[in-house]
Amino acid sequence: MNAAAGFISLEGGEGAGKSTVLAHIRDYLAAAGIDALFTREPGGTEAGEAMRRVLLEPAYRGLCAESELLLMFASRAQLVRAVIVPALAAGRWVVSDRFTDASYAYQGGGRGQPETRIADLERWAADGLRPDLTLLLDLPVAQGLARAGARGGQADRIEQEQIDFFERVRAAYRARAAADPARFRLIDASRPIAEVVMQVEQALAQFLCARSSP
Amino acid sequence: MNAAAGFISLEGGEGAGKSTVLAHIRDYLAAAGIDALFTREPGGTEAGEAMRRVLLEPAYRGLCAESELLLMFASRAQLVRAVIVPALAAGRWVVSDRFTDASYAYQGGGRGQPETRIADLERWAADGLRPDLTLLLDLPVAQGLARAGARGGQADRIEQEQIDFFERVRAAYRARAAADPARFRLIDASRPIAEVVMQVEQALAQFLCARSSP
Repeated sequence: MNAAAGFISLEGGEGAGKSTVLAHIRDYLAAAGIDALFTREPGGTEAGEAMRRVLLEPAYRGLCAESELLLMFASRAQLVRAVIVPALAAGRWVVSDRFTDASYAYQGGGRGQPETRIADLERWAADGLRPDLTLLLDLPVAQGLARAGARGGQADRIEQEQIDFFERVRAAYRARAAADPARFRLIDASRPIAEVVMQVEQALAQFLCARSSP
Repeated sequence: MNAAAGFISLEGGEGAGKSTVLAHIRDYLAAAGIDALFTREPGGTEAGEAMRRVLLEPAYRGLCAESELLLMFASRAQLVRAVIVPALAAGRWVVSDRFTDASYAYQGGGRGQPETRIADLERWAADGLRPDLTLLLDLPVAQGLARAGARGGQADRIEQEQIDFFERVRAAYRARAAADPARFRLIDASRPIAEVVMQVEQALAQFLCARSSP
């Protein structure tokens, strides 16, 4: 595999199957001889994981939208500089469980923070870094919430939101995918998991092929 | 005392005597019949205090300047909306141990983050809120560090910076005071504490008098 190192992000709402898909991406890249670095947002650094705990703590339900947006980018700024950019510079592939598109979807679509504000933060806090490939696991909100509910466990602060919040998140994700078809692959995550994994593998195969061409 | 509720901030570098002065401000306002709300930055809310712990944790010495700036404003956004604005709206005075001027001094002057970036965050994250009176405890950096060192205890992540960092912080603070003399009172904190307290009380007396005039 002589493909130039790439940066892949995985996005999706509640119950979209991200964890299962991530495990398959790991196996798929390993089989292709790619030792990718896997990280996640918010978090991925020691300080960032501490910020993640603040962001998801159910007790902070009064956290304002501005604070949430700034915390997300505080975690991202550190992840970009301390982890992602050095890895890519060293020729290592990076796969992130969520990246800046999630801020456009959750803090933008979900919380109503202006898109220009997020774009400005993306430019200086995230150094304008964007994934080369973004896999968006898309499914109807009700179906995703039913799956997430079946998983059990206590919902975090953001998971405790109402259905119309997640509808806005989904709409924002889909709008971003539609606006940048070269980077996004929309995966129909409403299908049985074996079919979802197959769609993801096809997207990866196509991406690796394109990157390894001269 | 019929003065309209005011917002006072106290600023100053390491070893400037902020804690001692704060106790005197508390006594002075109480004696004037003012039940002020005292808060601090970073922190002042439950989520904000958790962010403060991340910001000051010595183990996170690799935290980038962008992340530090965003965390400061994440804490401030919450403090402004959940504490300061509601208190002022209810007619209660507010005294904060540091506010946005500290970001211009530490993250701007100290870390080199652009002033326009901080001004932009001040506008939307802090809702453009500024104190009515800012007391700046100013003293030579070496003197302040000697005092802070004599206090003992482990230095936090920011206190562990080098002397040239604190020189830039002091210069930025002084420049802000010079640019806005109507709001700032520059207190010579190199004097013995009794004299420092007297300067602070004079500034408070003048401020209360001006506010209670018809």
